[in-house]
Amino acid sequence: MQTSFRVTLADVRDAAARIASHAQVTPLLRSRSLDALAGAELFFKGEHLQRMGAFKFRGACNAVWSLDEDTARRGVVTHSSGNHGAALALAASTRGIACHVVVPAGAVKAKLDAIERYGATLHPCAATLAAREATAAQVQSATGASLVHPYTDERVIAGQGTAGLELMQQSGGIDVLIAPVGGGGLISGCAIATRGIDAGVSVYAAEPEGAPDAYESFRRGERFTDIVPDTIADGLRGAIGEINYSLMREHVKAVLPVSEAEIVAAMRLIWERLKQVVEPSSATALAAILRHRDYFAGKRVGVVLSGGNVDIDALPWIKAQG
Amino acid sequence: MQTSFRVTLADVRDAAARIASHAQVTPLLRSRSLDALAGAELFFKGEHLQRMGAFKFRGACNAVWSLDEDTARRGVVTHSSGNHGAALALAASTRGIACHVVVPAGAVKAKLDAIERYGATLHPCAATLAAREATAAQVQSATGASLVHPYTDERVIAGQGTAGLELMQQSGGIDVLIAPVGGGGLISGCAIATRGIDAGVSVYAAEPEGAPDAYESFRRGERFTDIVPDTIADGLRGAIGEINYSLMREHVKAVLPVSEAEIVAAMRLIWERLKQVVEPSSATALAAILRHRDYFAGKRVGVVLSGGNVDIDALPWIKAQG
Repeated sequence: MQTSFRVTLADVRDAAARIASHAQVTPLLRSRSLDALAGAELFFKGEHLQRMGAFKFRGACNAVWSLDEDTARRGVVTHSSGNHGAALALAASTRGIACHVVVPAGAVKAKLDAIERYGATLHPCAATLAAREATAAQVQSATGASLVHPYTDERVIAGQGTAGLELMQQSGGIDVLIAPVGGGGLISGCAIATRGIDAGVSVYAAEPEGAPDAYESFRRGERFTDIVPDTIADGLRGAIGEINYSLMREHVKAVLPVSEAEIVAAMRLIWERLKQVVEPSSATALAAILRHRDYFAGKRVGVVLSGGNVDIDALPWIKAQG
Repeated sequence: MQTSFRVTLADVRDAAARIASHAQVTPLLRSRSLDALAGAELFFKGEHLQRMGAFKFRGACNAVWSLDEDTARRGVVTHSSGNHGAALALAASTRGIACHVVVPAGAVKAKLDAIERYGATLHPCAATLAAREATAAQVQSATGASLVHPYTDERVIAGQGTAGLELMQQSGGIDVLIAPVGGGGLISGCAIATRGIDAGVSVYAAEPEGAPDAYESFRRGERFTDIVPDTIADGLRGAIGEINYSLMREHVKAVLPVSEAEIVAAMRLIWERLKQVVEPSSATALAAILRHRDYFAGKRVGVVLSGGNVDIDALPWIKAQG
């Protein structure tokens, strides 16, 4: 029997109220030249301008403020390659509770620095899912902290959906939504929010060809995660969660693959034309719009720029030349 | 006898009405971490998000749309190291008239590309003021085009002031305004606008130590331009104009010098914390805030980010390591 997952528009609205005094309402950005290039009206939701530089703060904040007093007092714990860890650290600090972050080897230094700056305790481990989960379980049993999973947690999904809620309000309505998919928290939350408001919205997920777990899952008709990710989009290396896959099957029309070269080219365009510092994960959505043009041509398109935590000393187009 | 220059708040308001259907109302950006770093409330006016990527479009657009029909038909001409040329090219295209841009050797390639993309004719010349002016005069006599000087033109100054006008409206009021000074069009226009609305606003200009014509002019008590600029802030290499110096003496409290290292450090901060792609000229204002802290501590500070036309293949912090 299929478990029934019930994250609804009402949950997203509750999350929006819960995080309102902590999270930013991020701006919606436009570019005439990118519209011309895409042949569509693009509404970029600037989640790189969210606190700690990524949409992840929304979900983490909703999770932290959903805890009852007694539970909250024992703190929170997660494992994360970066943005969710920083997000949970910052969210915990808004409530004055402890935060433990299990960080796999190879995480981006800028992201680790942010986690420590927000006051969390780092717990390094090997870069496998098994090592992450084991280390998180150890911390949990030692401290009594609550686990807040980066994307399978329903409170996290509802929180991420608040970006979609704002996008609908700020844009005055869209025909199509596209967001990157890693574990699937952002895309499933935003799909619930946008399609809850207007069931006519078509939702697409953008995914690197080098981490094609969502694409393969859709193609096979069942969740498939037996993949070793190899992509510059470090925020999208997570394997799609069960709840996220289930919600995506319900709300997402297709997963659109993009190559590494297309990600870098789209990232350049966002830097040069939109003048925004975004990380490679954010650029997958524009890359998908430019490659899979028929889904977007002539439409009003909501595009989630997921984050901006990038090492500006190691930019892909400069490394490529060196 | 001192010539009397009369660019007023009313001129700025007229300019705002004239350019309203062509120019962007650019967003005001905030950063908690930069506020903490500066010990002040910083309101960044995002002119790098203006059309063609710099405030220059405001002044050029006001100049182009101030021309009567007969004069406009003969086109416009200017000499510019980059941003003003692109701005005039785009402004001319909004009116469907010809634009000629005299470009000195050594201009930033990204800026030249933009000028051509907007449909102007390029006229290369040597990198001296004399060569620029001679070439512009030749074009003028050959075509009958009107000269639109990058910063001494009163229509240009009034147009640049509209950025200050918006900043006052969007911020709900400031104590201090700081903007970069090159030729002085931006700082004089914005000083007139902000102090016209609230005479209590203190205005400071930020200037590279490597192009200290405004600083030296203030120190000597008379306009001084006998300087060979040497700074990464390519938008600030112009020598301060006579009208601009006169208006600055009336409205600007001090010129605050910043070093090249301070400019690059501030540019990094804007990229990393504010997630905005700005050119070095823009960063001088934040550099000045962080170096000359006493003028800004505890205040509400308007900070003009002047432009974002930077070559992202040649970033100063990466060149420095290479």
